[in-house]
Amino acid sequence: VSAIDGLIQELSRLPGIGRKTAQRLTYYLLKGSPEDSRRLARAIDRVVDEVTACSVCGNLTSDDPCEFCSSERRDASVLCVVEEASDIPAIEASSRFHGRYHVLGGKLSPLDGVGPDDLSIAALMRRLESGIQELIIATNPSVEGEATAAFIHRMVSSLQDLSVTRLARGLPVGGDLEYADGVTIAEAFAGRREM
Amino acid sequence: VSAIDGLIQELSRLPGIGRKTAQRLTYYLLKGSPEDSRRLARAIDRVVDEVTACSVCGNLTSDDPCEFCSSERRDASVLCVVEEASDIPAIEASSRFHGRYHVLGGKLSPLDGVGPDDLSIAALMRRLESGIQELIIATNPSVEGEATAAFIHRMVSSLQDLSVTRLARGLPVGGDLEYADGVTIAEAFAGRREM
Repeated sequence: VSAIDGLIQELSRLPGIGRKTAQRLTYYLLKGSPEDSRRLARAIDRVVDEVTACSVCGNLTSDDPCEFCSSERRDASVLCVVEEASDIPAIEASSRFHGRYHVLGGKLSPLDGVGPDDLSIAALMRRLESGIQELIIATNPSVEGEATAAFIHRMVSSLQDLSVTRLARGLPVGGDLEYADGVTIAEAFAGRREM
Repeated sequence: VSAIDGLIQELSRLPGIGRKTAQRLTYYLLKGSPEDSRRLARAIDRVVDEVTACSVCGNLTSDDPCEFCSSERRDASVLCVVEEASDIPAIEASSRFHGRYHVLGGKLSPLDGVGPDDLSIAALMRRLESGIQELIIATNPSVEGEATAAFIHRMVSSLQDLSVTRLARGLPVGGDLEYADGVTIAEAFAGRREM
């Protein structure tokens, strides 16, 4: 294949990028400065070369242990369990969590053949043996995320002095009640708070 | 910046890719095989290394002259004028044009300071001296594309034996009359044909 078709093909493999978008991006790169395009190629090489999973929490990182596991300023007594490393930047953007993370590497999904052994649940149990006081389960508010949360809750229920919480469900801030789905509104009613 | 943030930044520079999408793509590349990610980086390097503008028509190509200018099977007497090289694949997909191309490299746009000297109009005039019989103006059906078409039409009006045509405007195939804008419907009426 030609260089242009080759790049269109590679870009088309990315999620949410169809052939038209891949074409548009390819011509954009061709019209721009060669330096900008090469910087993108180098940035891709760099993540492949540098980034690995943190051996403690499973976060994707250039340094092992990752910035959260190695930082003395993070509260080592609170652990937040997420499905994917990509959930961590979203939580960090909220500036409301100052503990450490544990990345499951997915969610329980029997239909896809993903069981507890495919997630880092055994590693989570080992981490909980060393002075963790609160476990915040931040799996996605989806059917599978809820099932995963319930499974973990059951696994840790025998541990004494461990508080287990789950992120609140409710109306998304800036959202519109009119367009919220019934389940979300039901959760918002169930979780309503004194003003 | 970290490798992950660096790639998110580079991807965010691409048109239509915001920070969220750049993040999603970055984690997609991290979760996939390193080989796939490296293939994308190599494909970008390859277009930067190989692709240049065709010295005859301005098409973007790995070979100069480009496949259309060098092919004996393309009708050298018909020239199709387009704004950008990226318009050519769309026309080729229609399988209705078998002549050669001329890429203007943009459109007349006085507000952006783009005048005739910024487009390859002089080169077009030189090409028209050598046995071209039909000039098909395929600039975009936008205000600026129309102005560019009108300008070229005026420039070539003194040339004898040159037929100058413009792609038809009308309802897009597969489109819905109900959602077509008034100008398009007006053009469709003006250009109506015997059944």
